[in-house]
Amino acid sequence: MSHDFKKDALKRILIVQGHLEKVKKMLEDDSYCPDVIHQSRAVQAALKKVDEIVLHGHLHTCVLKNVHGDDSEKMVGEIVELFKKS
Amino acid sequence: MSHDFKKDALKRILIVQGHLEKVKKMLEDDSYCPDVIHQSRAVQAALKKVDEIVLHGHLHTCVLKNVHGDDSEKMVGEIVELFKKS
Amino acid sequence: MSHDFKKDALKRILIVQGHLEKVKKMLEDDSYCPDVIHQSRAVQAALKKVDEIVLHGHLHTCVLKNVHGDDSEKMVGEIVELFKKS
Amino acid sequence: MSHDFKKDALKRILIVQGHLEKVKKMLEDDSYCPDVIHQSRAVQAALKKVDEIVLHGHLHTCVLKNVHGDDSEKMVGEIVELFKKS
Repeated sequence: MSHDFKKDALKRILIVQGHLEKVKKMLEDDSYCPDVIHQSRAVQAALKKVDEIVLHGHLHTCVLKNVHGDDSEKMVGEIVELFKKS
Repeated sequence: MSHDFKKDALKRILIVQGHLEKVKKMLEDDSYCPDVIHQSRAVQAALKKVDEIVLHGHLHTCVLKNVHGDDSEKMVGEIVELFKKS
Repeated sequence: MSHDFKKDALKRILIVQGHLEKVKKMLEDDSYCPDVIHQSRAVQAALKKVDEIVLHGHLHTCVLKNVHGDDSEKMVGEIVELFKKS
Repeated sequence: MSHDFKKDALKRILIVQGHLEKVKKMLEDDSYCPDVIHQSRAVQAALKKVDEIVLHGHLHTCVLKNVHGDDSEKMVGEIVELFKKS
């Protein structure tokens, strides 16, 4: 994965860690349950955005460059697999 | 998309249509609500499986063959977009 | 489930059936794969909306009325279960 | 939310924080992209489990006890809203 994708993904992970710390604090402080769940959902959505960046980097850096190599079938299978579980 | 992927996807769509008809009948018959939702979820999961087959066919047939063409960036963007909304 | 929820859910199922028929036609006509997947996703989102209506009707009609009965624990478990699989 | 639900949710958040730290490390170490995404998905699934526990606690502690109060409609709406975004 190129440097730009990696830098962007890492920056977002740091933000996600901050938001997750907030979920923990809300639980400790007995915040209203639906508010806790909304905050947790925001963390999940932010992680999903990280996944997209990593996938984008993967398609650019690995897949486009090796697509006629021996691994092309394997890579197609991996992408479908990622899609399946999302 | 090659003939095999298309045939498999179409066969599954027919099954999905049958299951959706059952959701409709359960609603008409006042079935227990959680049971209706479970049946509707099964339809959604079956459609997600169709999406995987179509994506698989797309990667095989379009992406692997045009990956060094002018459309490669566009196709990478489309795949990330599909991933995002799943 | 009250008449209004049921009527709304059934009306939407008919629309979903029309959209699903369009997915089938797009597959038969060899439409561009990402377009097929987008249309299939629209069907899934429309079914998710039906699920919400059915859940709403269920909470109103069954849960609020039986919440102190013997089934209250069972109903709480069912709701968590529905949430889990969504 | 009762003490047991809270304790369980907090214990899991600590584990999630550990797994998220691992995602960060995998990114820093240039791990294979699909592996990073799988690890990130595991974090999201673990957070979804926390959401279920919090919802379960909420239904038990708040909803069942206030269901005939003025807030019952508001609470039903909140649950449907949580369901919608999941």
